Amino acid sequence: MSDLPKRIEIHEEGPREGFQFETRIFPLDERVALVDALSQTGLKQIQVASFVNPKRVPQMADAAEFFGRIRKVPGVAHTALWLNAQGFRQAAATPNVDLKGTVLLYASDAFARQNNGCDAAAMQRQQEDWIRLYDEAGVPIQAAYVMTAFGCNLQGDIPISAVTDQVRWIVERFRADSRPLPAIYLADTVGWAVPTAVERRVGAVRDLVPEARIGLHLHDTRGSGPASFYAALRMGVELFDGSVAGLGGCPFAGHANGAAAGNVCTEDIVFMAHEMGIQTGIDLDALIDAALLAERIIGRPLGGRIMHSGALGRFRAGR
Amino acid sequence: MSDLPKRIEIHEEGPREGFQFETRIFPLDERVALVDALSQTGLKQIQVASFVNPKRVPQMADAAEFFGRIRKVPGVAHTALWLNAQGFRQAAATPNVDLKGTVLLYASDAFARQNNGCDAAAMQRQQEDWIRLYDEAGVPIQAAYVMTAFGCNLQGDIPISAVTDQVRWIVERFRADSRPLPAIYLADTVGWAVPTAVERRVGAVRDLVPEARIGLHLHDTRGSGPASFYAALRMGVELFDGSVAGLGGCPFAGHANGAAAGNVCTEDIVFMAHEMGIQTGIDLDALIDAALLAERIIGRPLGGRIMHSGALGRFRAGR
Repeated sequence: MSDLPKRIEIHEEGPREGFQFETRIFPLDERVALVDALSQTGLKQIQVASFVNPKRVPQMADAAEFFGRIRKVPGVAHTALWLNAQGFRQAAATPNVDLKGTVLLYASDAFARQNNGCDAAAMQRQQEDWIRLYDEAGVPIQAAYVMTAFGCNLQGDIPISAVTDQVRWIVERFRADSRPLPAIYLADTVGWAVPTAVERRVGAVRDLVPEARIGLHLHDTRGSGPASFYAALRMGVELFDGSVAGLGGCPFAGHANGAAAGNVCTEDIVFMAHEMGIQTGIDLDALIDAALLAERIIGRPLGGRIMHSGALGRFRAGR
Repeated sequence: MSDLPKRIEIHEEGPREGFQFETRIFPLDERVALVDALSQTGLKQIQVASFVNPKRVPQMADAAEFFGRIRKVPGVAHTALWLNAQGFRQAAATPNVDLKGTVLLYASDAFARQNNGCDAAAMQRQQEDWIRLYDEAGVPIQAAYVMTAFGCNLQGDIPISAVTDQVRWIVERFRADSRPLPAIYLADTVGWAVPTAVERRVGAVRDLVPEARIGLHLHDTRGSGPASFYAALRMGVELFDGSVAGLGGCPFAGHANGAAAGNVCTEDIVFMAHEMGIQTGIDLDALIDAALLAERIIGRPLGGRIMHSGALGRFRAGR
């Protein structure tokens, strides 16, 4: 067990993922209450909302007001998502937004084309504009994501070389400017990852860039998310994205909707980590309370497990 | 990856667990249809029903008729559960029941007392009666279960020595008669297992009895079930219990019900195994169809993941 990390860092994506995924628009008070609850759990980074076209994503139309209403907590970054320069400028002009730059790359040409209208190589070139924009705004580039790193519903299996090609581009691009290397996230965008695939990809990236901090963005689409999380821990991965209560998907949405599940459930992986002696800095009971609040807001059962069964502290107490 | 088994065997417990867990009694036609569907998936062992007190468990009152109506398939064992000699004799007198003897031991005194009114040592002594009964009936003893092997809601943490003490009893008892050793199952009866706990317990049992076939009975109560399954595979475990669609629990049943989740979901672990190159002998698509049938019968969303998201074959087809 000596190869497990002592401590991991989990970034919370539930509010943005969840409230954007749902077609209903939930009262702002309730959304603010969820973010405020999450800010008290020990989480260090919470993605709150997106600055995107309000005609296409009306759920996010009040992102600026949302940020304006949340209670800031020292040491907790409240981050935002944007898809173009206009969205970034709106986020930059909004109080309470902690700006974090992200480089976004694709291991699948077909998925890049669907999401961005250009292939993976063209996505790389677009990142030059983003790097320039973040430089001009003085925003640090915290993370580089390789999307569809485990498989693609449009393209099928993704070879490891398609992942390492993107990682090589990141490393060369950042070394060329003598910039600090961002954390490199392998994103299982559509839920294909299984543990051995995690081991092979993390191993390949580590061979290529031994000094890189590697992160995983996992979706629990097919029930292997928690197992892939464990495989990543065994490979020494210390950075994860998660979604409180499994927000951001509807895992019971009916067959043949291949993208129906959210990120791995934050409190479930926090539980697993703590039980294995790995610190997260997160108060599990407080996080479970936040998950139950999320479920009350959404108004239907969410996919998280431990929020429904409870942690083990009460069974151990007094023994 | 060389330490993963080439092939595993999964025993299906969904029909018995599921229809016993639900308070409603479902039409016999529907229950029979589920078992018949499961019998066509490649599963080699399916637990169909219990022979127990119909006043206490009315859902199982028609167990004999249930067995009488299922379609037998060569190579598929249809097993039953019983809790006392009367139940066993009913099962033995019922056509279509494949009798498999099981020895049942507890790592937790408190749990043994709650379930059986006697402590773990007295449960050992009771097993003598069962061994005699199975011998008289010519029924092979296939498995020995150590219940609450990972923790107990009544007693708290369970030390590994409490597990190995029970295993030692099994080994000595069977060696004394020069009997073949049954498969030794570690049962996470109330859902405390995490991967490192699996590794430690399986390792300890293997150190004690290198020749034993070890099995795991996991519940996905707190989201670590699939990760514990993977940890067991890494330890070379080849025998698992599972529940189609996650039948046998209601993982969304509300907080503080510490036993609300069923076994690990059979088709989810079959998917994970296949994606990692491990054979199960099971047709995943047929099993997913059976899971969807189970959900239609139960009439509310069940906890399985891949039954709602779909397997990957269609994304790979034609590439």
